[in-house]
Amino acid sequence: MAARKNMDLRPMLKPKSVAIIGASNTPGKVGHIILNNYIEEGYQGRLYPINKDGGTILGLYAYKSVLDVREKIDLAVIAVPAMVVPLVLEECGKARVKSVVVISGGFAEVGNVELQKKIVAIAQKYSMPMLGPNCLGVMDPRSRIDTMFLPTYKLSKPKVGGVSFVSQSGAVGSTVLDLIAKEGFGLSKFISYGNAAHVDEVDILEYLMNDDETEVVIIYIEGAKRGREFFEIGKKLSKKKPVIVIKGGMTEAGAAAAHSHTASLAGSHEAYEAVFRQCGFAIAKDLDDLLYFGKAFATEPAPKGNRVAVITNGGGTGVLTTDAIYSAGLRMAEFGPQAQRALRKIMPMTVNVRNPLDLVGDADKKRYEDALGVIAQDKNIDMLIVIALFQTPGADESLAERLVEFKSASEKPMVVISAGSQYTQERVAFMENAGLPVYDSPAAAANSLAELLKYAKYKSGIAD
Amino acid sequence: MAARKNMDLRPMLKPKSVAIIGASNTPGKVGHIILNNYIEEGYQGRLYPINKDGGTILGLYAYKSVLDVREKIDLAVIAVPAMVVPLVLEECGKARVKSVVVISGGFAEVGNVELQKKIVAIAQKYSMPMLGPNCLGVMDPRSRIDTMFLPTYKLSKPKVGGVSFVSQSGAVGSTVLDLIAKEGFGLSKFISYGNAAHVDEVDILEYLMNDDETEVVIIYIEGAKRGREFFEIGKKLSKKKPVIVIKGGMTEAGAAAAHSHTASLAGSHEAYEAVFRQCGFAIAKDLDDLLYFGKAFATEPAPKGNRVAVITNGGGTGVLTTDAIYSAGLRMAEFGPQAQRALRKIMPMTVNVRNPLDLVGDADKKRYEDALGVIAQDKNIDMLIVIALFQTPGADESLAERLVEFKSASEKPMVVISAGSQYTQERVAFMENAGLPVYDSPAAAANSLAELLKYAKYKSGIAD
Repeated sequence: MAARKNMDLRPMLKPKSVAIIGASNTPGKVGHIILNNYIEEGYQGRLYPINKDGGTILGLYAYKSVLDVREKIDLAVIAVPAMVVPLVLEECGKARVKSVVVISGGFAEVGNVELQKKIVAIAQKYSMPMLGPNCLGVMDPRSRIDTMFLPTYKLSKPKVGGVSFVSQSGAVGSTVLDLIAKEGFGLSKFISYGNAAHVDEVDILEYLMNDDETEVVIIYIEGAKRGREFFEIGKKLSKKKPVIVIKGGMTEAGAAAAHSHTASLAGSHEAYEAVFRQCGFAIAKDLDDLLYFGKAFATEPAPKGNRVAVITNGGGTGVLTTDAIYSAGLRMAEFGPQAQRALRKIMPMTVNVRNPLDLVGDADKKRYEDALGVIAQDKNIDMLIVIALFQTPGADESLAERLVEFKSASEKPMVVISAGSQYTQERVAFMENAGLPVYDSPAAAANSLAELLKYAKYKSGIAD
Repeated sequence: MAARKNMDLRPMLKPKSVAIIGASNTPGKVGHIILNNYIEEGYQGRLYPINKDGGTILGLYAYKSVLDVREKIDLAVIAVPAMVVPLVLEECGKARVKSVVVISGGFAEVGNVELQKKIVAIAQKYSMPMLGPNCLGVMDPRSRIDTMFLPTYKLSKPKVGGVSFVSQSGAVGSTVLDLIAKEGFGLSKFISYGNAAHVDEVDILEYLMNDDETEVVIIYIEGAKRGREFFEIGKKLSKKKPVIVIKGGMTEAGAAAAHSHTASLAGSHEAYEAVFRQCGFAIAKDLDDLLYFGKAFATEPAPKGNRVAVITNGGGTGVLTTDAIYSAGLRMAEFGPQAQRALRKIMPMTVNVRNPLDLVGDADKKRYEDALGVIAQDKNIDMLIVIALFQTPGADESLAERLVEFKSASEKPMVVISAGSQYTQERVAFMENAGLPVYDSPAAAANSLAELLKYAKYKSGIAD
């Protein structure tokens, strides 16, 4: 597939200069929040507030039009009423602005199809990639670009990392961003593309495929307009990096809702699912799955097989995890004879040497350490789930620290299951920030490992 | 079904006097933690530490044997090595102790079947209901009974409420208790019954059926020894109160793990699932579901039908929720003509009057209030999902407060979807503590409402 010309997103994501059209001194206004976020987040490039009344906005000199700015503008963020967008867009074209993000809504999604066509024509005329309209725009923690009109105190921003998140919906986008920050895995780029009138998902995926900062791609999509191209780029992208997808409008009623949301034609559930599977995408059934799968792909190596070892300090949770492993299509490893002998030697009498390995309720850091030391060497094991219930007397911060150390030395995928309130949450935050994925339920952990394995097989060309 | 004689659990859950056999001055020891918890949690009855060496333990006079205590003992908590349990149990019998909880492990679950038979024989000889062995025992926030050997700083204790939680596994029990506390719904009783050697799940369910403090029952079970009686009591119980169940050992490997955990014979997946369905139980597929369904049952009235209205400030989340509603077997309500007219009148132009009702990204408390006011009156709606994404500029604490007020006036089941980090979590905690269930994903909310409806139909005798 040939790349579409003039769809280079680099000026949008790594701009040296940004104009904010519709910048405002009125708190709460979109053009105020966006400009304020740039200032607060320490954007290092040149910043040009544009407001038809001129004056000073948030301490910066405001231009009446982009045409008045002498320097080159890499990105114009447009936050003015829909009816005014063609005018300012035309000015951007004349000023040779390299890319635009149209935040404003009020186009095809509310029936204003003609107005949308008009702005697309302007973008095409000037070969100026246009994201949106009706979107949140972009965020890149490396370049400190953030075109979102969401107050920073309401939304935690993820740290720098390798996950890029592409969302047709701004709301899904901002919620998931906030959750990515909470879960502690790092972001490469966030791209909310709304009505996809000009730059669309195919352009974005192609850019991310070639972007060295992106290691994992997460997509929320309501409908792909260029189906064939989506399929082609999806297959190519997925051979390079894992892709996690959630589709809005999988049911008939959901599809109707999607149409009134981003004017998307959602298409048939079965057709999309078939395309996603052939592309080797991990399909999320719910928002949670985006986070669950995302953090596994962000940190874990490819598993060599489907045999999972489970170490636990709670028997029942070990039982449920065993169930979840089989339900996810994986299986329980059988410890090799050497590992069995070693475990029998070092474990107390109360521990049955079998998988799941129940270290029982009084297990402490030392017992986990002994068990992990043996299991890490066992060639009969491909992946590791460690259940650490911090409600028990022996499990404390030293256990969380030890698991993180162990993880960084482990060549096998390793995830943790821990759930609880305050005390547990502090330990969980510590582990997640250190790059050890923690799940609050057996199914979430097992399903995420299963997706790792599916992808490893897809990438190496082994049919499932 | 005839109740088993001598299985009255009242002395165990509402004891006026408790003996702690194996009480210890050594921090970290089970007998130390249990006694300390009684003192810390302000248990108001009489407390008798028992230790073969006597002396003073945690400031209390320690008896060498229960036989030395002159007063009547309602409950003896036994935390001594397995080999010593028969001896102290015999003494409990002679001292006419009314009930015992055997915390100690080391019985059938590790192959010591004979030792377990021996203690059952003693309990039977003295008609003394015995919970365990190999369990955490009981907790009742009303009577401030807590036999768990878990440090209080590691485990948040739920407030007083109507949910009773019965768990064969201590670990699953303590994790879920901690999560119940976090989710802010109240507990009636926690009963961890381990090997079920004497008192078993059938006895416990029968007690809870007649317990006025219990409104909802949650069960984690690995295997019911008295299958027929379990079925009978399950059906009767479920006609009075909703029951949520999760079964450990649903897969073959899981069943094997369950056997080595509580010596349970897990039985066939299909047989259990059929029994649960015929009993009208809500079947949890994962630990999360216990909490999700639990909080819906704890607070929501019975829905009159399957028509759900969705109000949202994020379009994409509305789309995903629509999908989740159909996937859960419910359907989207169609607003009545009157409601449609009213909404068209009061909503801004940017709001499409349809279900899901997307109030769009700048919605504030007032717009939610207007929309909810109309929808609450519409007879075409049976249940309500309110999506409140607090990342947006207009959604703040006043919205959370208004939703809580609205909820307390609503006769229809109403739940909220909100997800995010710090700012959102604070609003969520506020709403949950006020009795408004909040879910972090569309599927969790929709599945929970579907279980409410299934149960309402079961109870009223309408086949699904």
